[in-house]
Amino acid sequence: MQTEDVKLVIVGSLGIDTIETPVTRREDVLGGSLTYACAAASFFVRTGMVGVVGTDFPEAFMAVYDHFGIDREGLQQVEGKTFRWSGVYEADMINRRTLATELNVFESFNPALPPRYRGAPYLMLGNIAPELQLRVLEQMDAPRFVLADTMDLWINIAREPLMEVIGRVDMLTLNDTEARLLTGEVNAVRAARSLLEAGPRYIALKKGEHGAMLFSREGTAIIPAYPLEAFEDPTGAGDTFAGGFMGALAGRDELGLGPIRDALLVGSTVAAFGVERFSLERLQELERREIMARLDELRSMVSHAQGA
Amino acid sequence: MQTEDVKLVIVGSLGIDTIETPVTRREDVLGGSLTYACAAASFFVRTGMVGVVGTDFPEAFMAVYDHFGIDREGLQQVEGKTFRWSGVYEADMINRRTLATELNVFESFNPALPPRYRGAPYLMLGNIAPELQLRVLEQMDAPRFVLADTMDLWINIAREPLMEVIGRVDMLTLNDTEARLLTGEVNAVRAARSLLEAGPRYIALKKGEHGAMLFSREGTAIIPAYPLEAFEDPTGAGDTFAGGFMGALAGRDELGLGPIRDALLVGSTVAAFGVERFSLERLQELERREIMARLDELRSMVSHAQGA
Repeated sequence: MQTEDVKLVIVGSLGIDTIETPVTRREDVLGGSLTYACAAASFFVRTGMVGVVGTDFPEAFMAVYDHFGIDREGLQQVEGKTFRWSGVYEADMINRRTLATELNVFESFNPALPPRYRGAPYLMLGNIAPELQLRVLEQMDAPRFVLADTMDLWINIAREPLMEVIGRVDMLTLNDTEARLLTGEVNAVRAARSLLEAGPRYIALKKGEHGAMLFSREGTAIIPAYPLEAFEDPTGAGDTFAGGFMGALAGRDELGLGPIRDALLVGSTVAAFGVERFSLERLQELERREIMARLDELRSMVSHAQGA
Repeated sequence: MQTEDVKLVIVGSLGIDTIETPVTRREDVLGGSLTYACAAASFFVRTGMVGVVGTDFPEAFMAVYDHFGIDREGLQQVEGKTFRWSGVYEADMINRRTLATELNVFESFNPALPPRYRGAPYLMLGNIAPELQLRVLEQMDAPRFVLADTMDLWINIAREPLMEVIGRVDMLTLNDTEARLLTGEVNAVRAARSLLEAGPRYIALKKGEHGAMLFSREGTAIIPAYPLEAFEDPTGAGDTFAGGFMGALAGRDELGLGPIRDALLVGSTVAAFGVERFSLERLQELERREIMARLDELRSMVSHAQGA
């Protein structure tokens, strides 16, 4: 499998998570933005991961990546402990508090791309320090489409390199609060539109259980979220959304507003599966035909035909 | 105008509001659930209002109703002061605190329908005490479609009559929190679906700036909200949404999932205009062709054609 052409490269964090919800607590489960993004993308395209784990990273977790057919040549395993995160969800299952973050081997992570990744046409800069995102971007030949994800932490402590990233990518994903924090605009719609001036052709505003919005000079699109009657673990939903989007886009390999809207709908659908169970449990048993069926259902929920 | 057939009857509160936002403060503006709902409905159908005001109610406010062509035969003006509400919006312009509520003449309101209202085919029971909603319902001959709106207050203090209302209407509108409070379900989607068992054929879950969702045995629909870059006053948005919906539905006079979805999209569109300015200021200068243009725009924002 390692020699198959990688069409999509993703960089991000790999970690071991401990997650508490009002219902249950799960220790030492597979997590990290890169894990969720690669798993989601792998339904649609051969994806290469760029990340780091420690020597404590279980073989069983490596086997999960192999289950998804993720290319692991860009995964470094170095002396030390893997990045660890633990958090607790409130009663609404949406708001959460971080209990602990241990960077461990992630602290000295220096992403190095395998030569065969460099010509990949699609690149996703997952949620890591903007300096590292830039280092990955600089190792790529000339990707057709680059997505960057970010979070409030980097807006607060690394605004300058983050703005450089934003100036060099095709699309930026962030949530309402982050868009407002980044721009100083009170209104998230205005904030997102103003970010188009900073460089990216597309801004995807993530709204959690309410879906997402796409802003571009070509038009605005509302991306619905699939309505779930129950879910166990929202961890990684944003990464799954972005990864599913990039996978679908790279798999189709066609740019423009139409394909991008379509791929965002796919990302939203995969993300809704991901949260149904803890960690990657649901994605591991998910089949592509289930994604397609739910995608059709979601599409029909928002297709309001004129005079229908 | 008073003799034109009334196709839609709406009952609710009429009031004089004082509203504070982070930006400004407006004293003694026209408000109340009935005011917003009737104004929104009047773009599409002849609407009769059932409500009460005091002798202090300004003639200028009556002139606003006349501007919209609202039928005022069901509007009682009685000795005393009009219902008053004041509230303050937080920095997000969404969360708000009530500063004061004075029921005044509303306390002894006994809705009496003019005989020519009783045969109207559409009825909206706006947000008032469920006992009053029932009293209005009982005066109607045999409406084709009845919508009831409610709020947390009635769920807390008048659950029994509220459940009777719910058992006798075609559609119930409420927000996420209210649906969870009413059913005891943690998940709003499950809460809404479970309310279908209580009687209504349709449940519309209002999600504020995120739009709404429609649940029915015939299917689920996601109703988007028009993305606004700025708005001045979200007061009455839910009433405008419900009123615009009922007006559009009554104007078309056709039932079923398709027409109902379509009318909900109209309601969402009118509500997005309403919040742009204080009180009814924006609705007063709104033209039907503006609604139709924005409706087309909103529809295109969510129409994700397969493989588009």
